[in-house]
Formats: sequence, C-alpha cells, structure tokens
Amino acid sequence: MKKYIYLFREGNSNMRDLLGGKGANLAEMTNIGLSVPQGFTVTTEACREYYTEGERFPEGLWEQIIPAMSDVEHSSGKKFGGSRNPLLVSVRSGAKISMPGMMDTILNLGLNDDTAYGLAEATQNARFVFDCYRRFVQMFGDVVLGIESYRFENILDEVKEKQGVKFDSELSADSLEGLVKKFKSLIKAETGHPFPDDPYEQLKQAITAVFRSWNNQRAKFYRKVNHIPDDIGTAVNVQSMVFGNMGKDSGTGVAFTRNPSTGEKVLYGEFLMNAQGEDVVAGIRTPLPITSLQEENAELYGQFCQIASNLEKHYRDMQDIEFTIEKGKLYILQTRNGKCTISASIRIAVEFCKEGLITREEAVTRIDPHHLGKLLHRRIDDEAELEVLVTGLPASPGAASGKIVFDADAAERLGLAGEKVILVRTETTPDDIHGVMASQGILTSRGGMTSHAAVVARHMGKPAVCGCEALRIYYSDKKLVIHNREYPEGTEITIDGGTGRVIDGMVPMKDPDLSEEFQTILKWADEIRTLKVMANADNPFDAAKARDFGAEGIGLCRTEHMFMDPSRLPIVQKMILAQTLEEREEALALLLPMQENDFYGILKAMAGLPVTIRLLDPPLHEFLPNGEELGEDILRIKLTQNLEDRKVQEELYQKEVLLKKVRALHEMNPMLGHRGCRLGITYPEIYAMQSKAIFLAAARLIKEGYTVLPQVKIPLVVHYKELEVLREQTAQIAKEVMGAEGVDIPFKTGTMIETPRAALTADEIARYSDFFSFGTNDLTQTVFGFSRDDAEGKFLPVYIDNHILSENPFAILDKEGVGKIMKICVQLGRMSNPELKIGICGEHGGDPSSIDFCQEINLNYVSCSPFRVPIARLSAAQSMLKSRKSE
Amino acid sequence: MKKYIYLFREGNSNMRDLLGGKGANLAEMTNIGLSVPQGFTVTTEACREYYTEGERFPEGLWEQIIPAMSDVEHSSGKKFGGSRNPLLVSVRSGAKISMPGMMDTILNLGLNDDTAYGLAEATQNARFVFDCYRRFVQMFGDVVLGIESYRFENILDEVKEKQGVKFDSELSADSLEGLVKKFKSLIKAETGHPFPDDPYEQLKQAITAVFRSWNNQRAKFYRKVNHIPDDIGTAVNVQSMVFGNMGKDSGTGVAFTRNPSTGEKVLYGEFLMNAQGEDVVAGIRTPLPITSLQEENAELYGQFCQIASNLEKHYRDMQDIEFTIEKGKLYILQTRNGKCTISASIRIAVEFCKEGLITREEAVTRIDPHHLGKLLHRRIDDEAELEVLVTGLPASPGAASGKIVFDADAAERLGLAGEKVILVRTETTPDDIHGVMASQGILTSRGGMTSHAAVVARHMGKPAVCGCEALRIYYSDKKLVIHNREYPEGTEITIDGGTGRVIDGMVPMKDPDLSEEFQTILKWADEIRTLKVMANADNPFDAAKARDFGAEGIGLCRTEHMFMDPSRLPIVQKMILAQTLEEREEALALLLPMQENDFYGILKAMAGLPVTIRLLDPPLHEFLPNGEELGEDILRIKLTQNLEDRKVQEELYQKEVLLKKVRALHEMNPMLGHRGCRLGITYPEIYAMQSKAIFLAAARLIKEGYTVLPQVKIPLVVHYKELEVLREQTAQIAKEVMGAEGVDIPFKTGTMIETPRAALTADEIARYSDFFSFGTNDLTQTVFGFSRDDAEGKFLPVYIDNHILSENPFAILDKEGVGKIMKICVQLGRMSNPELKIGICGEHGGDPSSIDFCQEINLNYVSCSPFRVPIARLSAAQSMLKSRKSE
Repeated sequence: MKKYIYLFREGNSNMRDLLGGKGANLAEMTNIGLSVPQGFTVTTEACREYYTEGERFPEGLWEQIIPAMSDVEHSSGKKFGGSRNPLLVSVRSGAKISMPGMMDTILNLGLNDDTAYGLAEATQNARFVFDCYRRFVQMFGDVVLGIESYRFENILDEVKEKQGVKFDSELSADSLEGLVKKFKSLIKAETGHPFPDDPYEQLKQAITAVFRSWNNQRAKFYRKVNHIPDDIGTAVNVQSMVFGNMGKDSGTGVAFTRNPSTGEKVLYGEFLMNAQGEDVVAGIRTPLPITSLQEENAELYGQFCQIASNLEKHYRDMQDIEFTIEKGKLYILQTRNGKCTISASIRIAVEFCKEGLITREEAVTRIDPHHLGKLLHRRIDDEAELEVLVTGLPASPGAASGKIVFDADAAERLGLAGEKVILVRTETTPDDIHGVMASQGILTSRGGMTSHAAVVARHMGKPAVCGCEALRIYYSDKKLVIHNREYPEGTEITIDGGTGRVIDGMVPMKDPDLSEEFQTILKWADEIRTLKVMANADNPFDAAKARDFGAEGIGLCRTEHMFMDPSRLPIVQKMILAQTLEEREEALALLLPMQENDFYGILKAMAGLPVTIRLLDPPLHEFLPNGEELGEDILRIKLTQNLEDRKVQEELYQKEVLLKKVRALHEMNPMLGHRGCRLGITYPEIYAMQSKAIFLAAARLIKEGYTVLPQVKIPLVVHYKELEVLREQTAQIAKEVMGAEGVDIPFKTGTMIETPRAALTADEIARYSDFFSFGTNDLTQTVFGFSRDDAEGKFLPVYIDNHILSENPFAILDKEGVGKIMKICVQLGRMSNPELKIGICGEHGGDPSSIDFCQEINLNYVSCSPFRVPIARLSAAQSMLKSRKSE
Repeated sequence: MKKYIYLFREGNSNMRDLLGGKGANLAEMTNIGLSVPQGFTVTTEACREYYTEGERFPEGLWEQIIPAMSDVEHSSGKKFGGSRNPLLVSVRSGAKISMPGMMDTILNLGLNDDTAYGLAEATQNARFVFDCYRRFVQMFGDVVLGIESYRFENILDEVKEKQGVKFDSELSADSLEGLVKKFKSLIKAETGHPFPDDPYEQLKQAITAVFRSWNNQRAKFYRKVNHIPDDIGTAVNVQSMVFGNMGKDSGTGVAFTRNPSTGEKVLYGEFLMNAQGEDVVAGIRTPLPITSLQEENAELYGQFCQIASNLEKHYRDMQDIEFTIEKGKLYILQTRNGKCTISASIRIAVEFCKEGLITREEAVTRIDPHHLGKLLHRRIDDEAELEVLVTGLPASPGAASGKIVFDADAAERLGLAGEKVILVRTETTPDDIHGVMASQGILTSRGGMTSHAAVVARHMGKPAVCGCEALRIYYSDKKLVIHNREYPEGTEITIDGGTGRVIDGMVPMKDPDLSEEFQTILKWADEIRTLKVMANADNPFDAAKARDFGAEGIGLCRTEHMFMDPSRLPIVQKMILAQTLEEREEALALLLPMQENDFYGILKAMAGLPVTIRLLDPPLHEFLPNGEELGEDILRIKLTQNLEDRKVQEELYQKEVLLKKVRALHEMNPMLGHRGCRLGITYPEIYAMQSKAIFLAAARLIKEGYTVLPQVKIPLVVHYKELEVLREQTAQIAKEVMGAEGVDIPFKTGTMIETPRAALTADEIARYSDFFSFGTNDLTQTVFGFSRDDAEGKFLPVYIDNHILSENPFAILDKEGVGKIMKICVQLGRMSNPELKIGICGEHGGDPSSIDFCQEINLNYVSCSPFRVPIARLSAAQSMLKSRKSE
C-alpha cells in the first residue's frame, strides 16, 4: 500500500516533491521544535492519482486519513467531531512550488451544530464560535460546493442592515447562529443537498476540493506564466486550528524577516488582534504594522523576533512567516522563503553573504536573472494605477511616455523642439529612421519581433511595442482608433516595451537602478563563470554602454544598420541600382570612408577587446521602397495626371525604373533568399569594400597608438567553399592594407552558423574558421521551418496554448531540435579545429535557460544586447555552478 | 624516379586512370595481338604535374621519352629524324573519360626538309610526303603555336586559285613543297621564331601542347556539361604513323560494330581511300559507307569484320574503331566503347545479353537512366533544324507546338475548338487552370520550378517552360516581345520543357518510344532491385499511368490540386474567408463529397496497392487572388468610377473585404509559414474533412468488392506532439466511419520529414508513425536555408559557375548536408520503431544519383512522378548492384 499520508513529525524539508513546500516546511518546523499546530500532509502523489483515476479519490487514501486524524486528536487532546472540546482543522493546498492565493483553503473544518455548542462551552465564547461557524459554512459553500461568495455576503449585509450595524464584529452570537442557518438554507436550495454535518464527510469533500483547485483557471494561468509544470500536483495539509479570534489576547499576522521591497534588514509585516488569517489577507479590516506588536505585547514580540531570526538561520533565506496568537500563546502556522522584488533579493543575498549565512556562490544562485532586466531600463512605477488600452508585442524593453505623432518628419520636428513624442505607424521603413531617433518610443500595428521597427528600436535602446493589431491608424485624419475610442495626434500615451502594454496618458516612471549590491553580485558572478559575455552593438554609443555593463568584447556588430542611415541610403540605393560593376564600385567608393569611420569608432570604443563585425547580411531589397506602394503610386499618376507634361513623364519614368528593380529583387521567401554571404559571392565588391573599411580603420587606430582586434564574420554560410573564397578575399585585402599602411593588424575570420547545413558540415567549415557564432534565431527558423515573422503572429500562440510546444523557441532555445544540431556542430567543429572558439549571438544569448545550454555544450561565449549583458553575466555564473553540481 | 612513360606493350585496359582510355586500349589491343602501330603513353600523372608545377614540363619526363622513342624506332625499323626511312609519329590526347574532339592531336610529327626527302626516297612518293609535310606544319602551327587554321587555308586557297585547281589532291609535289615554305614563313612572321626542324623539339612542344589543351575552353565546357572532374588530367599517346594516303591501296576509316542510332547488329561507319583520318573527320571529302569496303577489297573487309567481332567479344561492348590501310595492310589505330542513342543502347544491351556476352545485371547497368526520360515523352526530332528564340527553366518535360494565346479563357475556347495553343502568361494562378488544361503547353516569364505553372503542368503531364525572364508580355496589345522581335497572338511556337528552349514555329516531333527491349530491361531491373518504386499522382488518370509504368503504389497524392479545381475554388475561398467555425464547416461540408470522389477514383485505380494521401499542405493564401493586383483594382475604381453609384460601392466593398483577408493571410516567408500540419493544428476541421473523405471512399470501395490500402500522410511535422494529436484525430474518424459503414478499413498513418527538426527528433516522431516520407525538396530548402524559387533564379547559377556547389541540390540530392541529416533520421526512426517504412517522395525520387543514396541508407521506397517511374526502376536496380559490389 502506498503511503499517502505523512504526519508533520514524519517529514522534513527535503520532501518538497512529495509534501509540497508548505507541508515540507511544517514538518521541518515541527522537527526543529517550533510550536506548530499539529497535523498531517496528503501527498502530491495522491493528487496526481486523483487526476489519473479520472478525478476520483485514490483508493486506500481514506483508510490512512482516519488513523492520522486520531494521532492529531491525541496530540491536541481534542476530538474531531466531539461535542466537548472539539478539534477543528484547516485544509490547505501546498504545491512543490509556491503558488500563493492560487488554490483553495478551508478553515475551521469540523464544525456542526453539535461541535459548535461543545466548543462554545469549552471556550466560553459562543460569539467567537458562531463567527467561526458562519465563516466556515460560507467558505465551504464557496470552495467545495461552488456557490459564489457574494451570495453569502448579500445575506450577511441584509442581516447587518436589519440590525443597523456596520461591522461584522458588532453582530451578536445569536445573529451569527441565525446566519449559519440562513447560509445552510442557501446551500440546500442551491445544491439540493443539506450541508454535510459529519466532520469526516466535510474533510473528505474539502480534500477533494483542494485537489480540484489544482486545475482551476487562475492556478493554470499562474503556472503558465511562471513556467510551472502542470503535472506535479499539489499536496494537502490538514492542521489543527488555533484561533486568533479568541478575544483580545488573541491575534494573527504575517511577517517577512526583511523588507521585501528594499531588502532592508527589518521585520516587515502586519497583524490584527482578535481576528483570523483571512481577515488580514482579504483586507476587510486594516491590520497594524508588525513592529507595533511590541506595544501590544513586548514579550511576544521578542519571542517572534527570535523565532524569525532562528528561521532565517535555519533556512538560510529570508522567511515569510504566518503566525497566530491564541490566548497569549504564539503559534507558527507557516514559514517559507519570502518572495521579494529583484532589488531586495540582490540586497538580501549580498547581506546574507556578508553575515556569513551563505557563500558567494549561493548568493549568485539566488538572483533570478529573468527579473534583472527591470533594473536596467526606465520602467513604470509598480505602484502606478494604469489604464491599459491594448497590448501588443513587447518588441524593445523599457517604458516611455509622449504625444502621439503619425509621421517621422513631425516626430523629428517636435523631438528636436524638445517635445516627448511616441511615433505611431502601421510599420516603419528605413525612411522613418530620423523620426525613430527623435522619438521616446515606437508603436506599430503590424510586424513582429523582427520587424524593422523592433530591430531598429532595440538597436537604439528605445522602447517599442509592435504588431499591435487592434490599432487602427488613419493617417489622413491624423488619428488613432483603439476599440472605437479615438486618439488624435498629440494625445499623451505611454508604452511599455517590456510587456507590450499601451497605456493611457503619462504615468510615473522609475529610473534604472544599479545599486552597489547589484555591482557586487555581478563581480561575484564574474569570478565564477567560464563563459565569456560579449555584446551585440553596432555603434560606438552602444559599444560604450556594453563595456559599462561589463561586456568583454563585441560578439556581433551588424553592418546593415549603418547602410540604413538616412544620409547613406541614397548611395546604398545607387549601389543596388547600378547597371554595371563600375557604377556599383563608384557607389561603394563613396560608402568606404563612411564605413571606415563606423568601424573606427567601434574599435576605439572597445579599446583592444575583440570586435566581431558581420559583413552585410540582409537581402538588398530591404534597402529599396515597398513595391506595392510604388505600383499604386504609378497607377495614381497614370490615372490622374497629365501624361503630356514632361515633368510628369520624367517622374513616371523614374518610378517605373525603380519598380522594375524592386520587382526584379522581389523574393518569395526573403529569409531563405539572396542574402548573407550569398551577396558576398555574387557581388564580391561589396564585401571587399567592407573588409577594406575594417582594416583601414584598424590601421588608423594602430598608428594612433590604440590596440585593436577586429574579427570578420561571414554570415549564412552553407558550404565550406563559400568561406574558403571569402576568407581568402579578406586575407588578401588585409595584406594589401597592411602593406600600404605599413602596420601589422591582428585579426580573425569566422562564420555564423545559421543553417542546418553549416552545422552538419562543421568539420569542413571549421578548417576555414577561427570562430563559429551560432545565429540561433535563423537557426531556429531553418531547423523548425518557421518564419519568425509569420509564426509568432499566426500559429505559434495556438501551438503554445495547445501544449504542442511548451515554449516559444525564439525566446527559449529548443534543446531537443536546435540544441541537438548545435551539439553535432560543436563536436564536428572542434574535432577538425581544436582552437575553434564557439559562441552564440542570437537573442538567446541573453536568455538564462539558453545560457545554461551553452554552458552544457561547452561554448566559449555568449553575445547579447548591451542591456542583457548583466543578465548574461549572472546567468553564466549560475550555469557554471549548475554544471559543476551535475558533474 | 616516377615512371611517366609506358610502352604500349607495358600497359593494359585496367590502367585507364594512369594511361587514359585511349592509351589503355592501345596497350590492350597490342597485348591481344592486333596490328597496332607501336608507340608509348605519357601518363595522366605527368599532365597533373605539368599543372601543379605551374605549367612546366615535369622533371625527369624527357629523360624517359628518349629511350621509349628508341624502342619505337627499334620495333618499327625506322629512325626518328632519320634522313632515310624516317619514323613519323602521331601525338594525341587521351583522358580517362573520353572527350571526343575536345583536345588536340598532331599527326606526321618528325617531318622536316631532311626527313621529308628521306621519306620521299623510301616511299618513292614525293607528292604524298609533301602533302603530309604541309598538313603537319599547318597542324603544328595551329595547335602548338596558336596560329589560327584559316591563315593556312587562305594560303592554300591562293595557291589552288593561282594554279586553277579545285581539289588539294590536284596539287603537285612541288606545289606542296612550296606550300610548306609559305607556311613556315607565316610561322616565322607570326611567332618571331623559325619553325622547329628538330623532331625531338617538335615532340616536346607537341606533348606540352596536348597538356595545355586539357584546359582549353571547349574541353572545360565539355567537362562541366558531362560532370567530368577538372583535375584528372589527360594522358598523351605517341604512336608510329601509318599512312592512309600512300596511294589507292591505302585508306582510313572509322566504324561502329553496331548501328549507334538503332542498335541494329550491322557494321556502321565510313572510310576514304588514299586519305588520312582528318579528311574523314573534317568532312572535306565525302567518305563511303563501311560496307562498300567489301567491293573495294573483300579480303580486307572480311579481316575487319572478324577484328570487329573479336573486339566486341573482348571488350564485351559495342566498339567504335579507327583503322588505317597502308599499302594494303590493315592497322587498328584505336578502339573504344561506342557512344549511341539511348534506344540503341537498350537494344544492344538486351541483344548482348541474349548473345551470352553479358549478364542481365550487366545489361541493366549499361543503360544510363538519365537519358531514359527522352523515350517517355513526345520530343523534338533530333534531326530538326531549330531556331531557338530564348531559353527558360525546363519546368515540365516534353515538347509541344501551338499558337500563342495570352489568356486562359481564349485558350479554353480555342482548345475546345480543336486548335493547338500554347498559353503564355507572366505567371499562372488557380484562375487559369481551365486554360492550362486546354493548352498543349505553358510558357511563363516569371516563377521557378515550383511556381504554380510548373507544378500544375507537371501534375497534368503538360510541357512547360517557366521563368523565361527575357519574355516581355503585353496583354493589352496581345503580343509577346523577345529580344525586340514581336510575336502577336496566334504566332506558332514550340516549347521544349525538357531543356527550357522556346523555338520559332512548329517543328517535327517524335512520339514516345517504348520498345520491347525497353520493357525487357525494366523487367530485368525489377528482378534485381530491392527499393520499391511508387509514384506521385493526384488523380485517377495519373494513377493509371503510374501503374502502366510499373509503380507499386502511390507514394504521394497531393490534395491541394483538388482544391484548385475551378469548380471548387469558390467553395475553398468561402471556407478560407469564413468568419466562424460554423461558416467554415458549412463550406467544408460542400467539399466533403467532392473529396470523397477524388479519393474513390484514385483508390480504385490503384486496386489494392497502397495510396498515400497527403493532407492539405500549402498556405491558404495560395487559394486567394494576388493582393497587389487587388490593391491596384481598388485604387483604379476609386480614382475612375462614380463612387455614388450603389453597384460601384458594392463592388468596392467586396474587393476591400477580400483584400483585408488577403493581407491578413499575407506572409513574409510562406515557405516557412502557416502551412502543412500547422493548418491541421489550427483548423482541425479541414484535416477532419479530408480524413473523413478518405475513409468514406475506402468504405464505398470495400462494399463494392475492391481492396484498398489508404495511407494518411501528415505534412511538415516539426514536433511529435503535432503527430500525436493529428494521428489520434485520424484514428477517431476512421473508427467513426468504420462503425457507421460497417466495414473494416486497413490503413496507415505516417508523416513527411521535411524539416531538420523532424529528422533530428525522428526517434520521438517514429513512435506515432507507420512510415516516414522524406520531402527532400523542402528538406533541401530548410537544410540549406535556400528558397528554391529565389535561389534558382538568382544566386544558384553563380554558385555552380564558381564551383561553390558542384550541383543544383534541388536536382541532385546533397549527400553531405541533406543526406547526413537523412541518415541521422533513418537511424533514430528505426531505433524506436523497427517496423517503420521509409522512403522519399520529392523530385529527387526520380533522380538516379539520389536513388543510389536512398539505397545506400537503406530506404524502403522512392516515389516520383509517373514519367520517372521507369527511370527509378532502372536506377534502383543499378543502385542495388552497386551496393552489392561495395559490400
């Protein structure tokens, strides 16, 4: 027979899987001699079986509950269902991972008319007993029988009104007894069955209800948001009741051992005298701060402080403690590791370490890197009341407020005049860059996480919300419509690029918070980690920011953004529209000094750290106007203008030539099209210009006395021969520049691994590479056959809702598929080139679980956006500690 | 010291790598006692070293040539450079793989004024000697010294004109001697150096020239076309000259041992008396058929017939023999396996087998499956003179002639009236299907091998040339412009879908040629092969054709073509535009009986053989009109029509609603978008309808007494959970139908493997699959990150020209990349499901080298288009024989 029941004294804190967090803690507290009301825990296994058996009470469970109740009766000296000195119990859920408030709790179970009178006699407090009784019936009615709480509240309000009283506490014992009868009648009427007076029947139903609450809507949602598995189930804790409402020498409260907002080392919490726990939680009465317990009862307060301190030492973590005082005696009902803000958790970890409670390694492990990002961006004050209008994709983190503006020119004009504006567009194009630069943030109605707006915003470190499909933008009327409400140009709104929220008006903000403790934790993390952390940065400003955040080099410097600069775009377009090699080289010659300055700035900013520059990657049509719009333009001219007019003819001709080229470059699947090193192979002169610019910039810096380490990165390789040819070209140009400038430039050449074929033939490719850089975004697209732009807006949400995929693979690296091919690649690559340095530079480079995987497969570095560098430093240290543990 | 030189008697026919085909044959012939003029072979290794040494004569080579020449002098009794009875030699190229006419040959080497007089004395034929001499100087001048041949011809013509003669043979010895002097003057004037009179110097320069000719333009091109490696080099054969021009009892000729066009067992060739070989080859004089040699000299003819027959038996292949008669003595100069048409090669193989010369296995091995396709389609007569206007992509094989028509309605009208038309469009859409059906063939200016036109044409077995970008189509003027020439509607043209050629006018055609020998070879192939051959077919007509060609089932029945049928498209569009599940199910209910009939027809046609039906695969927007055109339509209405008019308003509204949906369904990368089983997951009702139709059709047939074996195939799987859900749905529907219809339907469910992720997680996927079907087209796209539509038109040709890729991976399976992941998949899949049947159903399924690979990794079947089934049967047998050999 399986053991479904553990008395508190039978368990310990290591049994969280089986007893849940709360049950394991109650057992632990019992074993370290705290005054915990006794009871037992129904295991999570019982809950799982409840579900596998088709929501039926597991066989053999009840037979184990009976003797456990006897034990509790024995240790409390009370009798469950006894008419004298009856035992009442609480029934609470408690999963392995805490899900506060998500599942059900029932207090005072065991009451019926008989036991109520018995308890009233034992306590000499009928009012208290019937108060418990009516609370219990209501709670049971709500939680177990599914009658909504307000139905009981209505009856309560009627009675209070009839009696002309304002507070529950003003009701007499008789009124409360009357209420119990009314509540029971309601239950009979609603369910067709009388309220179960048998305490054992109550217990069975309550335990079942807790099992059932594992799968209620809010619990499921909480698990989804917090990545808690659906199949671990909850334990159920049955514990003797103690009463905080047994008069003025009784009370109840909750307290944290440190301030959960700031981390400061003070007791933080609240209590209410003559009350039960739900009065505090429900906010019906206003509790007092815990420190004022000292005034009420200095001795008890002293006891509590001592217990709190002991619990911290025992659990080596900040504790969240529930307590009850019954007639002057302090009971600890529950303790658990406290949840707190990310700032507080950092301060607490550092101080715990300094107090000698935990090691640096433990301190580093305790910080959840997922929340670290909040500290790095301007953000909306947690306390602010918000009117969220609509939610889009969280395309670039941070929050911003400003006036709505619908075009880039206006945004630039107002922005330069010092106005704060939010640029609102259906989507942005390279033509809008000046407007984006002048805005506080960007909001678009179309496009995904990789749309132009999203990429540019992340690149500039500006907040952006994209693909917000509920927006209707009327450019001609200069207005925005959301759910039938109009927002004319100039209306103030706020966007939260971390969550995708669009909020009415300006709201209070908080600045980035880089405390001393934060720096300390990162320093400790650096001492531990073996993965290098590099940054993705395309300009000197970002590069400097990346260094500030601790990046050890640039892992990915994209060059396409440089091409999109509005002052260069016309030259770039000329280069693309060139009919001959000569014309193209002419345009490239104009771009050369510009690119040289770009690289000069970045190499200088990184002062000798490696700077990995990726040669041009996107398809050329990205630099040209939209063909559909151009086609309509042409049609409009043809239908509405005087075609005899020379100027009209000229305009038409220009547009038609352009359209022809746009159409010629049009691709069915640009993601899989003429881009990456395919451009370098078909137009060698483009890559040649870029390489030359890199080496000229490096030479200039060396002559000025700087140290430089440029690394040339070839994108989208599928076959080693591409790399063979392009590596040779780069080497040739380096040689020429070094000869002409008379300096020696140290440099490396490597490749992106973005296609399955590159990974599968990594042994061949490694012969021509100093480094591999996984582009996990493109690799995820090709391994899955998912276009990110299309998937995230269309079928991916359905896949996640239906549990076909557990995560968005573009956010969390897919270890089974993408990870497997990465492993193959690492193995093949190192086999043929043991010196090979391997890292990742996709967005996964800043995601903690993906960093774990990078550690697991022994990569050398991760590269991520500057703002994620601290997250990556911390994650890398945690990954190292995990891998050390699993060795 | 390396051995660079082999005397003919030192080699044998197994030394082709080192001695080249010709050298090995000369050695072999020498060894079997034929009268071969003696000589030696310079190895291919010497040629390779010539190139690796920077085009320099390999060290030590010359030192080996001297003694070899002595040996030849000895065996011929003549002296090289001797003034009496001088030895002359030929110097010829000979690579491992024959490249006829591609490289250089020099005859009569060793002549100078001295040896010429000596030879004249020895032969008593000064005219002959100076004829040789002037030929030699001209050839040496051309081949070795690079002076174009016409310069010598001009001088010859002048002399003939001056002397008033018509033929070379009318020139006297003196005139010829004069010519030699004039030729030498030309050489001196052109090169600045006198003609080299030293025979050894001549020999050295000639051997060098042959080495050099390995890399001339036409040789390089020939190798590229025939997939011959560039780095194997050529051997050089130096052989004593014998003379066919020593008078009327001398002559020269070439002959095949069988007719190379038909395979008939007759000597086939031609000869000329009193002539040298190049007279025959160059076509200056008209040779006589070989059979008339009997009249000239019955004894010699008899000798030759005997030698021919012996050579066939010795080499066990049809021979292509060069011979010379010198003063009544027959010399065999060369023999090699003869090239012939595919029809001839089939007949010869079958007859050789029947004659006991070769086994069935050898017969099967001898047929090149690449050429088999020619016999299966109507094709342009090889003899026809063609004016090729332009060349596009060979999108669907076969040839067709007809009048140009520019729209589908006209095509249908004329086609039904019995006119032969070619539908010419920029691209086709589902709206054009009726026009495609009524045409002989299709020609488009846009779109690749997977464009709508290409897919539909292949599906219908109609010839098509697509993506012919040089076409300019003017719909409004009803004309086509190619290179500035206009072709109005009604002009007759011919397209060749096998080569992509567009040809002026109607041209003579040949019908498919399925001879008795052809059937015999295929029967023998079936006895040998272990790979099953299935067909891709989507309708009863194709299914029946596939059975005729020997398919053992349908490996891929696509259902999207059924949706594109013009009578159904409106219902399909209704289904797509549905706002609610109810609306969609209403449309699906209309499609159900149609689909049931589709499957009824195919299952019936295959009479119990497995029919694998792929559920809907393409993105839904493929069934809707083009958004760009629709947008322009709307703009046109807005700008030109009366917007007050109710009807105009209504039309505008309809179009705007449609455009909205088209835009909503628009995808950046449809190849990686919302398609395949992603549709099945997001709209389960679509797949449910299709499954139901399959089982209803099967039930009906079973009740009618037929045997059926439907196999449901789920496309584009990336995660086993997709398959788990969809397999369960299929099973559920099967159960329901079987219950309702009261019959038991045998069926299987499997999946396409088209994404790297599916291959990498094949162990999990195999648990839910009865079979795997590699979709190697999509798999190639995802493994490479190549969009086929974009790659083939844009960068792929550059990749192949620059030797980055050796083949188009969409035509020839890429073993290193795609193949590697297929191997991983097969291994993982079979590991977790040993019963798993694995095959391929992409276009590679009909490609011989890809079939080799399928055999190599132990697949169970290949599936290809009906017309390729015979090719696959033969290839599969060859693959089996190869794998047996390599074991």
